[in-house]
Order: sequence, then structure tokens, then C-alpha cells
Amino acid sequence: VQRFDLVIPRSARRVCRVRVGRGALDRFVEETIADPPGRLLVLVSDDTVAPLHAEPLRRRLVERGLAVELLTFPAGEPRKTRETKSALEDGLVRVGAGRDSAIVAVGGGVTGDLAGFVAATWHRGIPVVQLPTSLLAMVDAALGGKTAVNLRQGKNLVGAFHQPLALYADVETLETLPDEELGEGLAELVKAAVIADAGLFRWLETDVETLLARRTDALEHAVGRALRIKQRVVSRDERESGRRAVLNFGHTVAHALESVADYQLRHGRAVAVGMCVEARLAVRVTGFPRRNVERIERLLGRCGLATEVPAGISVEALLGATARDKKARSGRVRYALPRAMGRMPVGDEVTVEVPEEAVRDALGLD
Amino acid sequence: VQRFDLVIPRSARRVCRVRVGRGALDRFVEETIADPPGRLLVLVSDDTVAPLHAEPLRRRLVERGLAVELLTFPAGEPRKTRETKSALEDGLVRVGAGRDSAIVAVGGGVTGDLAGFVAATWHRGIPVVQLPTSLLAMVDAALGGKTAVNLRQGKNLVGAFHQPLALYADVETLETLPDEELGEGLAELVKAAVIADAGLFRWLETDVETLLARRTDALEHAVGRALRIKQRVVSRDERESGRRAVLNFGHTVAHALESVADYQLRHGRAVAVGMCVEARLAVRVTGFPRRNVERIERLLGRCGLATEVPAGISVEALLGATARDKKARSGRVRYALPRAMGRMPVGDEVTVEVPEEAVRDALGLD
Repeated sequence: VQRFDLVIPRSARRVCRVRVGRGALDRFVEETIADPPGRLLVLVSDDTVAPLHAEPLRRRLVERGLAVELLTFPAGEPRKTRETKSALEDGLVRVGAGRDSAIVAVGGGVTGDLAGFVAATWHRGIPVVQLPTSLLAMVDAALGGKTAVNLRQGKNLVGAFHQPLALYADVETLETLPDEELGEGLAELVKAAVIADAGLFRWLETDVETLLARRTDALEHAVGRALRIKQRVVSRDERESGRRAVLNFGHTVAHALESVADYQLRHGRAVAVGMCVEARLAVRVTGFPRRNVERIERLLGRCGLATEVPAGISVEALLGATARDKKARSGRVRYALPRAMGRMPVGDEVTVEVPEEAVRDALGLD
Repeated sequence: VQRFDLVIPRSARRVCRVRVGRGALDRFVEETIADPPGRLLVLVSDDTVAPLHAEPLRRRLVERGLAVELLTFPAGEPRKTRETKSALEDGLVRVGAGRDSAIVAVGGGVTGDLAGFVAATWHRGIPVVQLPTSLLAMVDAALGGKTAVNLRQGKNLVGAFHQPLALYADVETLETLPDEELGEGLAELVKAAVIADAGLFRWLETDVETLLARRTDALEHAVGRALRIKQRVVSRDERESGRRAVLNFGHTVAHALESVADYQLRHGRAVAVGMCVEARLAVRVTGFPRRNVERIERLLGRCGLATEVPAGISVEALLGATARDKKARSGRVRYALPRAMGRMPVGDEVTVEVPEEAVRDALGLD
């Protein structure tokens, strides 16, 4: 198990303990028993992951004498809503969770975002521990303190920054992950490589099949590397006032795609397409080498991810949706675009405004 | 107009500009035009205050060339809910409010709490400016960054800490305040005096009628003094991990009363009763002089506030409701009790656990 801390200056909760690797969930159990983060622990999980991971964890903790409850909600991004948040809050009232309770998110990105947001606002903020069980949540969603729910009109429009107390990424939980979701996580892994680690990109080009085969050592290596990239970015800029926006490569288009598809298109798949579109945009805007666009497309293809905007999506609807992006300023959409493999623009201004015409071209639709 | 800053170390938003006195709203208009806090300003107000203050302000700002929208909601504490928050968020989508917008809360405590909470979570946090128009909001609610909505099972169970960018308390807006609400604000003013300023308490004993007569100079003096008390407390402890709990004197019982009365009992009136009950409790627990209990009761009586638990309220229901208090630890209710007039316990541990029997006695019911 790899161990490191994410330290965030000037945040209300300054240190997030990170544990990555096989056996990290055992570590969670032992460290939680030694020093419980709350008088009552409330596990939050969706109804797919709950029987696989949350319910067994609940039993282990209860056997060791802790007060633990489990709240579940129906799986899927379409349920990442204010209504589900309210239902979980009603559940917290029911189990008697007060200010001295803590929440433990057990699941993928949707669970981490929802449970984290519930924790962020329950009694104005109680601790949350993140136990990501999907590759996507491990390499991206669970670290960094971003929590949110979607509105019909846009992703993550309502949310909060709430740093987890700790994150335990146990790659053994990935054994039960559907192939499709493994691919989604690979998309975020590719993103981490493109924005900050050309070496990781080359490693993926050589070894991505070891990840697809779910070799534990390979997963541990890749997840650890992605988490350290995220740690470096977030520790310098918690609130995305500057550098943190580098993490948004591929995401401006991805969020628009998801919104237009009414969240029926999964996040990782949207990010794969978004990266290809934005990489093409980068060729024109930042001089990103065209050869790298092809490398990205090829690598994503090997992961079973589509690299073109799905048929039936309207350009106008897509452009309209990008205008509601959170990075938009004065109504103008901004993009976080790489300059070279593993290199984003330097300085604090990492996003650029892009002419709509260039976006139309990069979308490759007519 | 009195001017000072509330500086909060280690908070995401560190400085809150405070302006108190006649003409503070003119100051708001001028300072906002000179340096707008957002590309689009969204005024949030209830349907009682909107025509009196928010709509005129909107017109003044629009005339000066700013982009301003006004969102309203039905007045009253029973509307301080997740549903009203959602409706306001839907309004933000409708008017096109993005991450570069700012919210301006125009109204009483409910408006400040709701609009502040909406701002705290819109795109994970946009600036909010507080323009309190009730005495209660001026002396207490608008400063300090606490925002929240109520659940049926308890007050302020879901919320966030979100420091306002600025607060403008214009005592001239109190001219249109109903007498009943003026009394409510006086309750919080008395609280400020009891916990931190024996001189202010004596001033109130001499001069409270000048406030009831709404003499502007007296209001300006009293509001300024109360705000400086709050500023001193909050600047040392934003998140109520220690000293800030002194502000909860009277509030453990008050919140329970409001909950049992299904929020039909107004907050200030509940605080008046709560202070009398908790002052009696303090006589037994901290040695608070019994004479001071009588002084508090007499002063609140002159403000037209009840000092006893209303008939028809059940002790068991009340005690049950206190157990859901946010200060409860390990299921045990804690109270913030004064030791003497203007003096709370020293050190970081300002709340004490109190035997239920003592609370029953202090409630004065059978």
C-alpha cells in the first residue's frame, strides 16, 4: 500500500491521508477502529456496490464494536440529483446522525460526489472518508474535494469543496468492476498523463493491456501515479482559481456532451471524446503537435473508447451546452488545452477563450 | 456610516467588509458600481421585502448600467427549506447566472440564510453580499458566514459556512419593519450584551425605548456594537470548534422550541424564551447570579417579548428536540451558559453538558 498526504493550505480541512493499493480497505478498517472519524459512521453506497463492498465493510466494523449505518440509493449518474441528496439527508435524520458523525463514501464517482456533498452540508459540514471502488473514482473523482449534484441544465451546477479526511483506493475492488466502467477510468488516466506526465503516457502506450487484464500491480502503479498528479495540482490550487483548471482538459466538451445526451452518455466515455475534440482544438490554439492527437486517439481506441462525437448529437445543442460551462466568463467558453504531451500552459492562466468556429471544426460534425 | 472589516484566518473568503448606519445602502450602490462583485448580480429577496427594498435597488443598479436580476420567494421561516433553495437555483439557471455571478441577499434572517446557502453551493460557491433589512439579521444573522435551511426535524440541519464579501446594514430600512420583528432583533441584541458586553446591557436597560421608538442614532449605536461583538467572536473561530459556541446562549432551547412549534414560533421570540430558560440553568450550573436572570426577564419584557415557555408545549417533546441539537455530543445536549453579565466561560470549551433534571426545572413546566 502506497501512502502519502494531500496537504491543502488555507482549507478548512487541511490534510487528506491517501492510501493506494491492494489491502487498502483492510487498512481503512484498522485505522478507523484505532481512530474513528465520528461517533456514528454512515456508509453511503449505491444499490449495486452496497452488497459487494459496503455491506461487508459495515459488518466488519460493527463486529469490531463501532456504530455504523448504511444508506443506499439507486445506482447511476441520472440519480446524482438534489432529490437523491435530500433522500440521503432524510436517512441521516432517521439513523440519528448528528454533527459528531462521519460519512464514508463507498463506490464510484457518483457516490463520492453525492456522499461528499451530503457531508459538506450536513450540520454545515461533517467529515467524509472516500473509498472509491471504480477506476474513475480512484484516479480522479475521489481526491480533491470537489462534490456536487447535477441539474437538468448542467453537470455539477450545485456543489461544494469539501476535502475528504482520507482516501483508501483498494485496487482489488476493481475485480468486480464492469469492463465498460474500467474503460471510463482509463479515460481519466489518459487525461492525467496528457496534462502532466508524458512518461505515464508512454507507459500506457506500452502496458495498457496489463490494466485491461486487471493486473493488480499494474493498476496499483497507474492509480498511484494518477493520484500523485492530482495531489500536486490540488495542493497548489484547491478552488480552481488558477492551476487546477488544467484538470479540465477534455471536460468542457465532455460536460456539454453529457448534458445534451441527458446523462445517458457515461462520464468517462464523454471525457474520451472530449479529449479528442479538445486535442484537435489544441493543435490550432496552442500548437499541440498533431501527432499527439493521433497517439491519444489510438490509446483510447485500445481501451475500447470512442473518439468521435456520437451520431445524432447536434452541434448547436453542444455549443449551447458549452456556454453553460462553469469556466465560462462573460458568457465566453474557455478551454484547458495542452501545449505538448504532459505539458499544460505555464502560469496561473491555464484556460483560453477559443473562437466558436474552431470548436465547430474540432467537433468534426456538419 | 461605521466601517470595519471582519478578517477570518484560514477561511476560503478571508475578509468581509462591514458598513453600518444610515446611508449604508447608498454606499452599497456606489461601491458595487465602482467594483462589481460579479458580471451578473442576482438579488434574492422575499415577496414582502422585494417591493420595499430589493426592487428599488435593482432599478438603481440597472440605471447605472449593471446587469441585475431579482429572484423572490414566499416570505417566512417555514419556507427556509431545500425546496425553496431548489426553486432559487432553477431561477439562477433561468437568468443565466454562471460562476462569475454574485448574489445579493436583501431581507431578514431567512433571506440571508437561504441566499447565502444558495451562493455557497452554486457552482461550488459564488460571492454573496448581505444587505440585512431586519434588526435580527443586522445584529446577528447576516455576519459570520453561517447559512442553512431547515428540515422538518430540526433547524439549520443542512447548510454551509460561506463568508459574505460584504455586509451593509442600513438602519433606515428598519423604519418599515413590523413591531413584532423589531422585538425579535432586540432579543438577539440582548443576547450579544449578555454574552460579551455588560456595558451594552446597562445601555439597553437605560435606553431600550429609544430603539423601540426607532431612533436612528440609537439603532446605529446598538447595531454597530452588536456587530463588533460578533466580529470578535467569529474572527477567532469561524467554524464553531471552540469560542464561537458562546453565540449559542439561549439557542439550544430556542431551536428546540421552534422545532416543536413547527416553526410557527418566530426565532427571536424563541430566543427570548430560550435565554430566560438557559439563564435559570446557568444559575445552577455556572453560578450566574440569580439577580441577572431577573434583569434579563425585565429587559425582554420591556421589548414586548415573552419570557416563559408558551402554554401547550410538552416538556418531553422539547427535551427530545434538544437531543437533535447540533452541539450534542455522543447524544448528550450541551449548553452555552454565561458565568456573569457579559462573561462566558473562558478557554475553548464553552459549552457544558447539563443533567436533564436541571433542564426540566429551568423549563418551569410540569
